[in-house]
Parts: sequence; structure tokens; C-alpha cells
Amino acid sequence: MARRLVIIGGDAAGMSAATQVRRMKTVDELEVVVFERSSRTSYAACGLPYLVGGFVTSPDSLVARTPEQHRAKGIDVRIRHEVTAIDVKASSVTVCDLESGLESAVHYDELLIATGASGVSPPWPGIEANGVLQLRTLDDAAAVERLLAAGARRAVVVGAGYIGLEVAEGLLKRGLHLTVIERLDAPMGAVLDADMGADVAGAIRAAGIDLRLGTSVTGFTVLGGRVTAVETAAESFAADIVVIGLGVRPNAELARAAGIAVGESGGIQVDDHLRTGSPHIWAAGDCVESRHRMTGRHVVVALGTHANKQGRVVGTNIAGGDAAFGGVLATAITRFQDMEIARTGLSEREAAAAGFDALGVTTEASSRAHYYPGAQPMKVKLVVERGTGQLLGAQIVGGANAGKRIDVLATALWNRMTAAEVSGMDLSYAPPFSPVWDPVLLAAGKADAML
Amino acid sequence: MARRLVIIGGDAAGMSAATQVRRMKTVDELEVVVFERSSRTSYAACGLPYLVGGFVTSPDSLVARTPEQHRAKGIDVRIRHEVTAIDVKASSVTVCDLESGLESAVHYDELLIATGASGVSPPWPGIEANGVLQLRTLDDAAAVERLLAAGARRAVVVGAGYIGLEVAEGLLKRGLHLTVIERLDAPMGAVLDADMGADVAGAIRAAGIDLRLGTSVTGFTVLGGRVTAVETAAESFAADIVVIGLGVRPNAELARAAGIAVGESGGIQVDDHLRTGSPHIWAAGDCVESRHRMTGRHVVVALGTHANKQGRVVGTNIAGGDAAFGGVLATAITRFQDMEIARTGLSEREAAAAGFDALGVTTEASSRAHYYPGAQPMKVKLVVERGTGQLLGAQIVGGANAGKRIDVLATALWNRMTAAEVSGMDLSYAPPFSPVWDPVLLAAGKADAML
Repeated sequence: MARRLVIIGGDAAGMSAATQVRRMKTVDELEVVVFERSSRTSYAACGLPYLVGGFVTSPDSLVARTPEQHRAKGIDVRIRHEVTAIDVKASSVTVCDLESGLESAVHYDELLIATGASGVSPPWPGIEANGVLQLRTLDDAAAVERLLAAGARRAVVVGAGYIGLEVAEGLLKRGLHLTVIERLDAPMGAVLDADMGADVAGAIRAAGIDLRLGTSVTGFTVLGGRVTAVETAAESFAADIVVIGLGVRPNAELARAAGIAVGESGGIQVDDHLRTGSPHIWAAGDCVESRHRMTGRHVVVALGTHANKQGRVVGTNIAGGDAAFGGVLATAITRFQDMEIARTGLSEREAAAAGFDALGVTTEASSRAHYYPGAQPMKVKLVVERGTGQLLGAQIVGGANAGKRIDVLATALWNRMTAAEVSGMDLSYAPPFSPVWDPVLLAAGKADAML
Repeated sequence: MARRLVIIGGDAAGMSAATQVRRMKTVDELEVVVFERSSRTSYAACGLPYLVGGFVTSPDSLVARTPEQHRAKGIDVRIRHEVTAIDVKASSVTVCDLESGLESAVHYDELLIATGASGVSPPWPGIEANGVLQLRTLDDAAAVERLLAAGARRAVVVGAGYIGLEVAEGLLKRGLHLTVIERLDAPMGAVLDADMGADVAGAIRAAGIDLRLGTSVTGFTVLGGRVTAVETAAESFAADIVVIGLGVRPNAELARAAGIAVGESGGIQVDDHLRTGSPHIWAAGDCVESRHRMTGRHVVVALGTHANKQGRVVGTNIAGGDAAFGGVLATAITRFQDMEIARTGLSEREAAAAGFDALGVTTEASSRAHYYPGAQPMKVKLVVERGTGQLLGAQIVGGANAGKRIDVLATALWNRMTAAEVSGMDLSYAPPFSPVWDPVLLAAGKADAML
């Protein structure tokens, strides 16, 4: 009889793992059963804000692979099935068929926990009202469409992080009046330093959005079950739609209840092979904590890139191979209208908190040769360690073609380069693509000179 | 009395060095005299094709700094002065004032040779005719304008390398009928493998250019001093303008005549501090050979990026500091209309020639999430060493935002990463910027799997 891999969760990490196992093992060697509580698999949640904004027009285009397509590849996907418990001693999970309500126990030889993360949802009075939502699923996007069709005019986005800004841009493009309420003193305050965040704030306001920084939501006014306003200590903001974008927390309760170790970060603890502390139980994706390469500390960075990579790594290992996940730099990129925003490694604030004697150096540069049409201003902030000159982190804010340069700096961080080393690298140049000193080199040279 | 640095050549390397010396030493400590045989300093030769194409409209915008601006910074720039000999024993150079024709000997304490490179100009009959030119200076660009104003309709570009293609695009944009004649079997044959070059050939032909590969020019038909046709063994191509784009050779004769060592590559030999073999004599820029980081061999890569970096390094050293030039990867980028073309490290052919057991792996990918508008197809070719898995080189051909990704691979090469290591890196992702597996990661993963 075939051994059985049970996977809890059919999104990026789970399905990448399933696919990788199928590449390496036949169904007769290792059966793969995936329990997914929603009715969809492998959809691009990152695309949802662009669906709302109308940049992407077909919801179906966000589905990378349907349950049927996975089944055709020999993966036994069971949608609308929720795993409610793991019995480590019995090597079985309790599964509830959400259609019938029937529960059953399913044996596993290997278990992969890929339960993802859930949006943070504070206990604010009225948060359950109609019109208050998060943008985490295609159903959420459909709910936004219904509210727009019903005549919604005023939207409030709570949280000025990645999702918050992407949703705000999308709803603005749909013609709504937008207010963004952020508890911190700058947008993207969790990932950018305040000086870089100030540029983002400028772009948000220039777009006509009412951005309220340093402002905490206290609850919602609800009328007939529908939200009508967002309340703060000082003010009330009328709203037909409220989108909560406060980040996510790992879905680690199932693991914790089964006695599987969960870290201080709230993510399931795994080693570099994505083994949990319990034999034959693995975990991957938004539900785990990962080693930050610059600090060695364990952090939760819920991004599809890591979920996909970890899925492949854990699939390889479950199938008898030997793969390691190399850790994270918390590299990320987004866009607000024409402004590109990217970061990697540690911000100045994070570096200081981690005990580094760090210096932040910001360089203004041009995305192209100054004389070439379409050259856009951009800012590169580098965080470097005094003494060693080691690069600890980078942030970029600028126009077209600014943001993706963060990958060069991420690669430099991955290799623990110093600012001096980076400034000497042989990067590409032609007038339509960069100044003769690429902004990355310019920034590294300036940081080196300041050390 | 101040010691004196004499610099031969007032373009990128020479003026970067002069500027760096001025940052570190006062005029009283070290006088800097620059002899430049043309009437300009520090202009962006790389911008000339875009001036011809009308993308850039002001020739003055290509001048980064005029002789007057340099003089105001304490650099004694003498334009229209040609150094005709170096007397190593006497520590002096012979300088000819091209206006007066007068020669004089000028003493130096330190000498920097930054004589640049000259366009390859084969001894083809008729090459001196009116209408046959290279695009190396602002005067050349002005000559093109005069020919266009005089009614030129048919252009032939000889050489399908960087400059050839950039000029061809520019002249095509100006409404000319274009023929490009290339001796090799693919465009950019010196820097791309033939499979990638084939895509470039497709784009050139799709643009309506008559591209003749594997075709050698034998000479020119000249009528009344003006070129009327380009001759090949089989055919004659009518031409009102002929642009020769056959690459450049280091201007090393002056050094060689003075007994300064010149390498087999034709470039002046320098160590990593840019010292020549003769005491107190330094060299930098297009006239020197540089260490290729992947082979350890010495090569001439005439690019403004290296000239600027070397100028800064040599300026630091001449001023008493300690800086090293880290070598080259021969990273480069260009564009033909909407197609971006980039490369770094060794091509498959170069890797084989250097004795590596190399494998070339090509990956087709998308520049953005497949569902995001404007996603462009792109190809990434990686050259990896069998056995070690070390990345040896990379080539990219694709649509908007494809090319600059070469910098990530250049950074990976700089750090001698393997394909497996690259595939695990934490690069940025958001749907408008890349698929969840960035093309670089996808290509590295595929190369690793093929090893």
C-alpha cells in the first residue's frame, strides 16, 4: 500500500509541495491528499488589489491551477474539507467535510501543515458589519464589486501597509472618495524608515487621498447591519466600504493544539529542511517562522515568494530528497500609482533594534541617464554597519524602473557584501536604462564614503 | 612647488581621476594638468546613437562637464593639446598645441594615461569617403545631421553590435531605409550566443531593416568624393550614409612607444591599483586591459562604467589613498526598439573557449505576473559549470523591464554563486513587477535541475 502524505491547506506552499512530490514520486509510492477548507486552490491573493482596481479584469486569471487540474496531476485535492485536529500519536488528522458536516479521521505517514495566515482583525465594535472586509480571497473581491454596484462612494482603508495602499489605489481608480487611516506616523511604517515613508505619504496625498497618520480606529458606526462610518478618538469618517489591511498572523493554532512547537513570532518552528519538532510533521508557508539572514532571528514574513520556495523545498524533502530553505531578507516591492516602493533586509530602525551600530545613508539618483527622456528621480536608502561596512538593508522609493533594483541589493545582502564591494560591481549601463553610475552603485559609494 | 599630475585624455577615466584627486588633494599639494586633443571633455559617447535617433534633442545635454567647469574646480584642462610622446626617463611628455602647432616638454611627477580607444577602421577602399563615418564624437553626430539635411535616404550600418544596432534604430526612426551588414552569423555575435542572437535578428528584420548576416564588406563605391554604395563579395548596397560600428581598439601606441607594457589583448597592462609596469605611470579606461572575474584572463572591455570606476580608483591611489579595481564581468545592456538585450559574464561559447565544461540553459518567462497587463515575454539564458553548478554567465532578451534583471545575475556572478544558490534567493515580488518566481529564480532553478 502506498504511503500517504496529508497536506493541510491547498494554496501556495501546500500545492507547491504537492506538485514537487508528484515530480519525484509516483502515486503508488506516495499518495498525496490535500485538505483545503475553501473551494479554491493556488490562487494569486497578491493580485486581488489589482482586480479591485480593474487593472486585472478576470478573477479566473488569478487562479494558477484549479482543484481539477491538480487532481489530473495525481494530487487528491479535497476542497471544502477542514482539518480540525492533528493526533500526533495516532498519526492522523480529524477532517470535517464542510458540505456534509461529517467528520472522519485520516491516517498520514507524512504530514505537511500549510495552513497559511489570517488577516489581523481587531475586536473593534462593529467590525462584523456588512461593508467591512479584508481583501484576502476572491470572495472578498466579489464582495467589493457588489458594494460598488450598490452605489458605494466613500471608502476607508484601515492600515497603510502594502495591501492597504494597493487597495486604496484600486478603489481610487474606481472613482471612490478615499480615506486611509494609519496608526503609525508614516505609511508602510513596519517596513520603511520614516524618511522614506514621508515620500510615500506625499504621493498618497497628491493622489487626493485623505491620509490620516498617527490615528487609531476605535470602532464602526453600523446602521441596519451595514457600516456607515469609521470611528477614531477625534473624528468619524463616513464609509460605504471599509477595507482592513493590518497584516496577517500565522494560522498556527492547529499545530499548537497538537503540541507542535510554535515560536515567539507566532509562527510554527521549523528547521532549514522545514521539519517541525515532531517526527514526520513538516510545515511551510505563511504559517511558519523563517530565519532572517541578517539577524539570525526567527520572523514571520508572509509572502507568496517564500511560500512557493518553501513548498518546493519541503516537497523535495518529503519525497526523500535533500533541500534547504535559505532564510529570508524580507525583500518586498509594491507600487502606489507611478511610485515604486521596495525594501530588503533591515531598516535603520530594525537594525538598531537588532543591536547593530547602523548608519542610514540616502542617495538621490536618476533612473536613467539625466539627458534621456523619461528619466525619473529615485531615492536609495542603504543601511550599513559602522566598522565593518556591511550592508544591512536597503529601501528604494522612485518612479518607473526604480523598484526592481532592490533585487541587486537583496543579492548583495544575501552574499553579505560591504558597501565598498557593492560600489565596485560591474552592473549594466546604457542611457535608456541607467546613469553611468547606476543608482545602486552611487548609493553604495556614498554609504562607503560616509562610513 | 606643487607636485604635478599629468593626465593624457580628458574623457571619462581621465576626468574622473582628476576630480577624485581634487577631492583629496589641494592644488598646492598636487597640480593636475589634463591634455585633451579634442575640444571637449567628459561627454557621454553612449548617448550619441540616441541623439541621432532624436530621443535626445540637445547635443549639449551629453556634455557632463565642460573644460571651463573642470577648470573652475582646480583642474588645468588644456583642450586641443595632443601628447605625442612620453619620456619615462626624463619624467616628461611632449605636448603639441594643435592650434599653434608648437611642441613643448612638460614635466610630470605622476602620469595617468587615459587615452581611450578608437573605432576599428579596416583598410577598405573608399573608407575615407564623405558619408562614411563612425559615431564616436559629437562632431560625428553633427556630420550625420548634415547628411540627413542634405537629403540622405539610404543608410548602411556595418556591424551589428551594440553601436551598430543603436545607430540603426536611430536612423530608422529618422525615416531612412536601413541595411545592416554583419560578418558573423548573428547580431551581437561577440557578446551573445547564436540562439539568443537569433531573437535579436528577428526583431531587426521585423522592424523592416535589411539584415545581412555572414556578409563581409569589401569596400565602398565613391562618386565625387561621396560614398554611393557599400560593396560585398556578392552584392552592392546603395548608401547615402555609412556608419561603421565594428567596436574599438585601445589607444596604446603612446604607451607602447614609451616602453610601457601592453598586453596580448592590446590594452595597457595594469595591476588592480591601475599602476603600469613603469614607476609613477598609471593607466585607466578604454586603453587598459582588465581582469575578467570569471576567467582571470586580461581583456579589453571598453565601457564608460569601467572608465569611470577606474578613474576614481586611480585618482584615489595617485592622491595617496588605497583603492583597487575589482575586475570586470563584461556586463552590458542595450535596446533595439522594444526589445531589451543584456548579458554578463561568459557566453556559452566564451565559457567553452576558456576551458569550462559549461552548460547553457534557456528559460522562457514573463516580466510580470501572467495576468497583469503589460506582461512581456522574456528569455533568460544561463551558462553554468557542470560539476560545481557555478554560474558563469547570463544573457537576457525580452520586452520592457527584462534587461535590467541582468544586474541581479551580475551580482550573483560577482559573488561566485551556484545556480542552486541563486534559485533560493529572496527577490522582490508583486504582480506589476514579476511573476511570483522571478525570471531570474526560474532560470536558476531550471539550470540547477538540468545539471
